[in-house]
Amino acid sequence: MSGEKLNVAVAGLGRMGLRHARHFATLTPKANLIAVSSPVQAELDAAVAEFGPLKTYLDYDEMLRQEPTLQAVIVASATTVHAEQAIKAIERGLHVLCEKPLSTSVDIVCSDPPSLSSTYPIFYLCFLGTMTIASSAPPTDCEGKQQSQSVVTAYEKSLIKNPSQKVICGFSRRFDASYRDAHQRVARGDIGAPSVFRSQTCDKLDPSGFFVDYAEFSGGIFVDCSIHDIDLALWFFGEDSVVKSVAAVGITAVQEGLRKHNDRDNAVAVVEFYGGKIAQLFCSRMMAAGQEDTTEIFGTRGKVAVNTQPQLNLVNLYEPTGIRREIPPDYYGRFREAFIAEANEFTACCLNDTEPPMKLTGAVSAVKIGCALQESLITGKKIEFDERGERIESARL
Amino acid sequence: MSGEKLNVAVAGLGRMGLRHARHFATLTPKANLIAVSSPVQAELDAAVAEFGPLKTYLDYDEMLRQEPTLQAVIVASATTVHAEQAIKAIERGLHVLCEKPLSTSVDIVCSDPPSLSSTYPIFYLCFLGTMTIASSAPPTDCEGKQQSQSVVTAYEKSLIKNPSQKVICGFSRRFDASYRDAHQRVARGDIGAPSVFRSQTCDKLDPSGFFVDYAEFSGGIFVDCSIHDIDLALWFFGEDSVVKSVAAVGITAVQEGLRKHNDRDNAVAVVEFYGGKIAQLFCSRMMAAGQEDTTEIFGTRGKVAVNTQPQLNLVNLYEPTGIRREIPPDYYGRFREAFIAEANEFTACCLNDTEPPMKLTGAVSAVKIGCALQESLITGKKIEFDERGERIESARL
Amino acid sequence: MSGEKLNVAVAGLGRMGLRHARHFATLTPKANLIAVSSPVQAELDAAVAEFGPLKTYLDYDEMLRQEPTLQAVIVASATTVHAEQAIKAIERGLHVLCEKPLSTSVDIVCSDPPSLSSTYPIFYLCFLGTMTIASSAPPTDCEGKQQSQSVVTAYEKSLIKNPSQKVICGFSRRFDASYRDAHQRVARGDIGAPSVFRSQTCDKLDPSGFFVDYAEFSGGIFVDCSIHDIDLALWFFGEDSVVKSVAAVGITAVQEGLRKHNDRDNAVAVVEFYGGKIAQLFCSRMMAAGQEDTTEIFGTRGKVAVNTQPQLNLVNLYEPTGIRREIPPDYYGRFREAFIAEANEFTACCLNDTEPPMKLTGAVSAVKIGCALQESLITGKKIEFDERGERIESARL
Amino acid sequence: MSGEKLNVAVAGLGRMGLRHARHFATLTPKANLIAVSSPVQAELDAAVAEFGPLKTYLDYDEMLRQEPTLQAVIVASATTVHAEQAIKAIERGLHVLCEKPLSTSVDIVCSDPPSLSSTYPIFYLCFLGTMTIASSAPPTDCEGKQQSQSVVTAYEKSLIKNPSQKVICGFSRRFDASYRDAHQRVARGDIGAPSVFRSQTCDKLDPSGFFVDYAEFSGGIFVDCSIHDIDLALWFFGEDSVVKSVAAVGITAVQEGLRKHNDRDNAVAVVEFYGGKIAQLFCSRMMAAGQEDTTEIFGTRGKVAVNTQPQLNLVNLYEPTGIRREIPPDYYGRFREAFIAEANEFTACCLNDTEPPMKLTGAVSAVKIGCALQESLITGKKIEFDERGERIESARL
Repeated sequence: MSGEKLNVAVAGLGRMGLRHARHFATLTPKANLIAVSSPVQAELDAAVAEFGPLKTYLDYDEMLRQEPTLQAVIVASATTVHAEQAIKAIERGLHVLCEKPLSTSVDIVCSDPPSLSSTYPIFYLCFLGTMTIASSAPPTDCEGKQQSQSVVTAYEKSLIKNPSQKVICGFSRRFDASYRDAHQRVARGDIGAPSVFRSQTCDKLDPSGFFVDYAEFSGGIFVDCSIHDIDLALWFFGEDSVVKSVAAVGITAVQEGLRKHNDRDNAVAVVEFYGGKIAQLFCSRMMAAGQEDTTEIFGTRGKVAVNTQPQLNLVNLYEPTGIRREIPPDYYGRFREAFIAEANEFTACCLNDTEPPMKLTGAVSAVKIGCALQESLITGKKIEFDERGERIESARL
Repeated sequence: MSGEKLNVAVAGLGRMGLRHARHFATLTPKANLIAVSSPVQAELDAAVAEFGPLKTYLDYDEMLRQEPTLQAVIVASATTVHAEQAIKAIERGLHVLCEKPLSTSVDIVCSDPPSLSSTYPIFYLCFLGTMTIASSAPPTDCEGKQQSQSVVTAYEKSLIKNPSQKVICGFSRRFDASYRDAHQRVARGDIGAPSVFRSQTCDKLDPSGFFVDYAEFSGGIFVDCSIHDIDLALWFFGEDSVVKSVAAVGITAVQEGLRKHNDRDNAVAVVEFYGGKIAQLFCSRMMAAGQEDTTEIFGTRGKVAVNTQPQLNLVNLYEPTGIRREIPPDYYGRFREAFIAEANEFTACCLNDTEPPMKLTGAVSAVKIGCALQESLITGKKIEFDERGERIESARL
Repeated sequence: MSGEKLNVAVAGLGRMGLRHARHFATLTPKANLIAVSSPVQAELDAAVAEFGPLKTYLDYDEMLRQEPTLQAVIVASATTVHAEQAIKAIERGLHVLCEKPLSTSVDIVCSDPPSLSSTYPIFYLCFLGTMTIASSAPPTDCEGKQQSQSVVTAYEKSLIKNPSQKVICGFSRRFDASYRDAHQRVARGDIGAPSVFRSQTCDKLDPSGFFVDYAEFSGGIFVDCSIHDIDLALWFFGEDSVVKSVAAVGITAVQEGLRKHNDRDNAVAVVEFYGGKIAQLFCSRMMAAGQEDTTEIFGTRGKVAVNTQPQLNLVNLYEPTGIRREIPPDYYGRFREAFIAEANEFTACCLNDTEPPMKLTGAVSAVKIGCALQESLITGKKIEFDERGERIESARL
Repeated sequence: MSGEKLNVAVAGLGRMGLRHARHFATLTPKANLIAVSSPVQAELDAAVAEFGPLKTYLDYDEMLRQEPTLQAVIVASATTVHAEQAIKAIERGLHVLCEKPLSTSVDIVCSDPPSLSSTYPIFYLCFLGTMTIASSAPPTDCEGKQQSQSVVTAYEKSLIKNPSQKVICGFSRRFDASYRDAHQRVARGDIGAPSVFRSQTCDKLDPSGFFVDYAEFSGGIFVDCSIHDIDLALWFFGEDSVVKSVAAVGITAVQEGLRKHNDRDNAVAVVEFYGGKIAQLFCSRMMAAGQEDTTEIFGTRGKVAVNTQPQLNLVNLYEPTGIRREIPPDYYGRFREAFIAEANEFTACCLNDTEPPMKLTGAVSAVKIGCALQESLITGKKIEFDERGERIESARL
């Protein structure tokens, strides 16, 4: 092993951005966090206070220009600039780990005007390559393709010059020890043929109403929450699985205000795949006890369950009211170790030019399913696909 | 308390019939098992050997005629004669506890020819009052109504003369201590408004192919298995809940042969109710470890879960491969105590002329939903209902 | 099977006596509860109200004389008359199921004066045969032997005339499904040689101070609680296991008043057996959550654990404070089914003249160990035994 | 935060030494692993291969002399030189994190001959300050005191010149998230007064016989395993708790050979503390499923349990034989995260001159109790202490 380290910058120092910065600065020994960018000076100051001397930029573009030794960018800025920043980094040949979602509901000034054709409104969050673009209004089919193609093109074009370039849009659960254990067992046939997949992503109830405002840009509960479950379904069923149909139903049990953003606080869905496989999904914003992300894979000879008995740690409390245990309050509480593994493995694949831990094709399928589910949630219609994965019905939103 | 006991006969001594006989003979102190009927002499002999002196009949009708002190009949005979036997007992003013399903796929010689109009093929298992009738081919809408009406009429007509008569088609889970505990908590508002209901009924894999033959008469997996989950959904959401839509998807992962009976071995479903409530269902014939019947009720302030950690008893085995526990091999292993409670409570409500433990309206709704799900499973179509619970789309099978 | 039933009387209608009456009257189909005795008229009236017409007696002796068809007596009266009543029933050739403890700290008027030599104070609860006698002050060695011998003699003498007579002092856990499952696994060698046994009997904290008064007659926490664990140790290690040493330590964490009765509210103990086996015991009167009776058997190839995850039922509650489950509030909540099995199996062995479910030798060993532990608890001394199980040290209390 | 890092060397690259090196090199961002020493060249080469350029030494003393920037030493070398190496580092004013046990059963050439008086055989492992010294034969009381004093003196003497010097003998469980959660709850009074403490340290059965050879130098099962439980008892009861008595019993269930080293493979113990507190301990080398380290703290108002449901991760496997989960195979599998926290917190307290996470007094008490238990295990005698913690009985081994 050489002592070489990967020079990393983090764009954005909000909640998740700061966590990424912390993981790369203090928990990823093979990475050097050399720079951060944020439009908020106080966040830059706080980063220096916490991580010691590093370069700070109020302007992302300037950071790219001023840091010739930069090798990789972690895009965790405001979601409105994710796609733009990712593409700019891609075009400079940098490795990119892009937080999801790439973008929502805003005009994007593309770094590559000829291909993305200027600014445009986006509503549907769509993962392209391993990234996402979302539009605030139903894109025409044509526009949707343009968007996808432009991002894919940016990466594909760059790959010609930079064959070792890595671009990842991390699905953190793929780095979680329990999910990996489960996947290994399924992959080696322990449960026979995986046939039914049940998974839920449920956030702790936040009575502040945060999720109503958040929904304006989140892409909707299926895209924001269930995208993880969809990605897992593809991982466990095989990334070349072809979706056959999706259908979703939802309610607003605690946050009626979500309806104005075409969103719901609880939703269930069924996703059929060709080859006799079914995924059953549930997403919720109102779990009382905390983060409850549970997955079960039912095979012809056995079942593997992940987190069906949620817990914060190994402590049980015996009280006059019974036996109690706490559970993680949020996604980060459940998956912190996975994010750290993500940082380290992304760093390793960049340094060693090895395969990134996940393929692009699955991510493209995931976003297609997530967007279709969100559409089905609102329209109440089942959406069907042919054996190549193309929508059968012409009708779209 | 007086020493009065209820004189009971059990019709049918198959697997479940024998269990009922045992429950009433030895575990229901307020009941006297005075007679049994079965077309199989060996079963009658075995009953005498096990339960001591009691009257035995090869012919059900003769038992009704020859036992003037008989007060209640437990109908657990071959499913092909359930409905007929139940109606005959109803018309004699006897209390009836009818095993489900009442009937399937055979010609029924009705005891009340004018109302049931002769014999007819039946395919859809339909619960009428608390009972079920099933036909082997899609009945016309008219026939379906006739059948329903004829059974309801039999009971309603009898009630005029016998206002204390009880007719029950038991949903055993309603007698289970854990479900009752859960229901009490939900009913008193512990979890706020129950909003999402997830439930599964999953049988242990039986590699013998038993379920293929069984499917010919079972009514299908949603009617045979999920009817319990549907009943629970109505119980937890409120028995006056009105179904808004149903949609189902299924596969044959282990028993391709089920397709010839329009059945599947794994199926998932979504049931919407008016008022912002959703039920998510899963039924399976291929669980490796044993019977896995799990239910969760998600409310606006909490969740109640039943059997999310299945277990046979309180034993854990620590072995070189880890920590293991067994789970009940079948439905009876999980719900034996509930069946015994059912026997005792049915007896008590007959003796004391008190309310039976469940209402008829919910059971009617349950079978309507079960049949619609089974139809959706085969057609792939979502079925919608208006606010009175009437199907919106004219199209039926 | 014949329709023959066992005619049973219950002596005593206090908390446990009423439960026994209920089990025999309504949950033991092969038993007829024909009579009850109690010095409290109101209890007799309540029994008639609950169980219907049966003979009631304010006087135990009169019941024995007036009920010629009586076959078995359940002795569950005030502990001060257990031994006396048991011996009287034994001498009439009746089957006896005797609640523990047989007697404590009072003068007993023996039914057989020549052998028990009149009245005497008793402190140590001693199981003789399957029964117990306790004295309020340290008996001389001679007296202890006399007591033991007199009760053994009563039963042995009676057996000559009544070779089918059964006398049982029930250890309810031996009838518990989980303990039986565990025992079956250990007995067939699943865990290799059972070597270390850990068991606890812990009652829910009762802040009323009930246990202080109770301690005056209970025989002490090791005799009242741990006697079950000791019996289990002998059951799992083999009933011919020979104790090598005992040592105990205790505290009064919540009930200082227990000290005046030479008792403690929490105590731990180590019991060595010849042949390289150890039992580690814990008993407590201050468990917050409820009854916590847990047992683990560690073998050379595996471990079996009973109730290491206590629970009331299969319900889990998800609340803002985490996930909670309730546990049984008391011993009866945990072992109700075992008591019912005990009633039925006692009845069956009397009717069929089969082996009772437990041997006498183990029970004698259990009480010897329990008494020694209680002594060690107070003296702080380790007590040692030779390979025949005789105390090595001459020093006694 | 400044960018300052702590320059660390690791002495010894065996199993645990390599882990420490890894933790400091790659998982402790504030530490620089600058040097390692080992008498095995291959281990040094492997370290360079894994950790990149760092200084390697076949000779520990030379490392101390040649590394002027060194600030802290992690002593994880062969146990025979722990004490010697620790004292040498202490005398140079370096911070020390010393793996336990410091030494066993060998002659130690002291770095400070006048105070340690030359070489001597040691049997009892004794923690001095936060460190341990063990002798292969019963030291005279005088020698024991000399040893203790010499090490304490080394550190105390050094502290005069180096008041910021930190010397830690890590008890890894104190860094475990679950134990910390439990301790926080107990410390703030959630369970009332902690009164009974039950804890076990049980290793997975290693059929290779490794533990027999290991026992020659391990100090015995109570010192090697239970020292953690003893430390926890003191942590939960209060580090100023005074031991009142200890008593232990053990067996050799699987490794008869342990007897030649005065050791056992399963042992249980009771430790009394003044003030009405009891600890019940169990240690074993034959757990089938893996590492089972469980702790319960029973208070007057509640109980806290740590790891009563051991598990490797959040995966459950549903198989034809039931539901199974794996558990960590060894101590490191259970406590890896705690070791990493230990590395980081040790580093932080050295850099920031803050209080180390544990006090010395508790560690001294722990080793006293551990040695007394090991003695009681062999002699079969209960050992008592007065209220100052001094042995009451003059008799020693």
